[in-house]
Amino acid sequence: MSIPTVAFQGERGSFSEEAAYKLLGRRIRLKPCENFSAMFDSVIHGGAKYCLAPIENTLAGSVHENYDHLLANQLHIVAEVSLRIVHNLIAFPGTTLANLRQVYSHPVALAQCGEFFKRHPKVEKVSFYDTAGSVKMLAERRLPGVAAIASRIAADVYSGRILAKHLEDHRENYTRFLLVSKTARVPSKANKVSVVFSTPNAPGALYKCLSVFALRDIDLTKMESRPLRGRPWEYFFCLDFAGSLKEERCRKALDHLTEVTTFLRVLGCYESAKKDTAK
Amino acid sequence: MSIPTVAFQGERGSFSEEAAYKLLGRRIRLKPCENFSAMFDSVIHGGAKYCLAPIENTLAGSVHENYDHLLANQLHIVAEVSLRIVHNLIAFPGTTLANLRQVYSHPVALAQCGEFFKRHPKVEKVSFYDTAGSVKMLAERRLPGVAAIASRIAADVYSGRILAKHLEDHRENYTRFLLVSKTARVPSKANKVSVVFSTPNAPGALYKCLSVFALRDIDLTKMESRPLRGRPWEYFFCLDFAGSLKEERCRKALDHLTEVTTFLRVLGCYESAKKDTAK
Repeated sequence: MSIPTVAFQGERGSFSEEAAYKLLGRRIRLKPCENFSAMFDSVIHGGAKYCLAPIENTLAGSVHENYDHLLANQLHIVAEVSLRIVHNLIAFPGTTLANLRQVYSHPVALAQCGEFFKRHPKVEKVSFYDTAGSVKMLAERRLPGVAAIASRIAADVYSGRILAKHLEDHRENYTRFLLVSKTARVPSKANKVSVVFSTPNAPGALYKCLSVFALRDIDLTKMESRPLRGRPWEYFFCLDFAGSLKEERCRKALDHLTEVTTFLRVLGCYESAKKDTAK
Repeated sequence: MSIPTVAFQGERGSFSEEAAYKLLGRRIRLKPCENFSAMFDSVIHGGAKYCLAPIENTLAGSVHENYDHLLANQLHIVAEVSLRIVHNLIAFPGTTLANLRQVYSHPVALAQCGEFFKRHPKVEKVSFYDTAGSVKMLAERRLPGVAAIASRIAADVYSGRILAKHLEDHRENYTRFLLVSKTARVPSKANKVSVVFSTPNAPGALYKCLSVFALRDIDLTKMESRPLRGRPWEYFFCLDFAGSLKEERCRKALDHLTEVTTFLRVLGCYESAKKDTAK
């Protein structure tokens, strides 16, 4: 079997890379991309079979940009994976907890480690463009007294040393990633469907949409509204429900949904991620 | 009349400051706070009468952390304002477009100005903790060939020069801010209500909730789900609807809603922001 190429956003050693290994194992080729746009382009214009897009973090909420990319391109969700986000303090020879004076990372990661910085008030936070990118920079420049906050995998990739684990304030910090492909497929174990739709701008429009699921006792697992680009304060809806396109009641519900929406697209039908638990 | 103190997140000269002036005029006292947590604390533990919390951007989506703060504290939304986000390139003597080599700003602002950096491929993006903070740093350090991306107000506050306006890729870039107070009040012009609720974990639960509005032809203006902290992949819902607590049909709808929810709180009843248009 050929080894699939998986595009992801960030430098080698990112949380996306950790998630890719968790979902697909080690027999994959990784393609780091500078941003989400480039990552989706890799799938659309060849090169990568899949991309792995973070879609939701339990603390920070949805990664809206990726809903927008899914909507703008004819791509399909074929799987998902949930990864617990564990922040590690990573350094190179010459840096210890005792002489630590600066910590580089992405601002979101720095913000998620507030307690660590409260306990070490003399340590300065330095915002950087990427978590793994901070480790990469330190691997090259070897600044004494300087460490980075990033994934365990970043320590592996750049041969850094983990000085401290679990810097995150909240243990219930998970990110859900979607595996996205140019080719649609419905796996036999599929038990979740993701759709996006917009409604006529009238009272009760959303209620009618939800009725197609309620009438068939179909459970909604997630729902949210997203602003329509170029039309401030108008929205489309992203909805996940439990079921498979192989079930007739789900196909009927979607038929019914086309009648009460102005736009509808099925983003994918796939197996839902196993629930990870905080260890 | 006494001059109210308004807490906001960021340095002086932030977009929040621009929004505060737009909503309340110039007769206010501003209290910059390091983060959203500190900003809400200023209202809870005195000092500030209000805080102005960004809640939603038309490109980036909701600022979920602020929903969490509203939910965690007994505070009330008393007004809202919508601000068009215009990114300016700001510098000090010694820096011109001709010798520009680095631009500092918050990573989100840098990402929103992608076209500018494509047109100036030799200019390096440098991530910084804050947009206005980048201007403040340059005002102090006067680095030649270095500029910052921030609001118009930041140029005023730190006496910087605007080298270029409208660096943002998308003109439809608006942020909606909520004015939050310890004291609830329902203004006579109120025409919007914000609530949060959670539902029993059963199929059709959300449908029942929306029925209380649909039955009364009450228009929903926004709805989204938010993960419950500490309970990965469970959600509560944030919903805005058109109406006022002074109307009986809205009070009845909320009475009805308590019957079908496991938790319900009214975050506020206020006048909806005027729709700004891109000029």
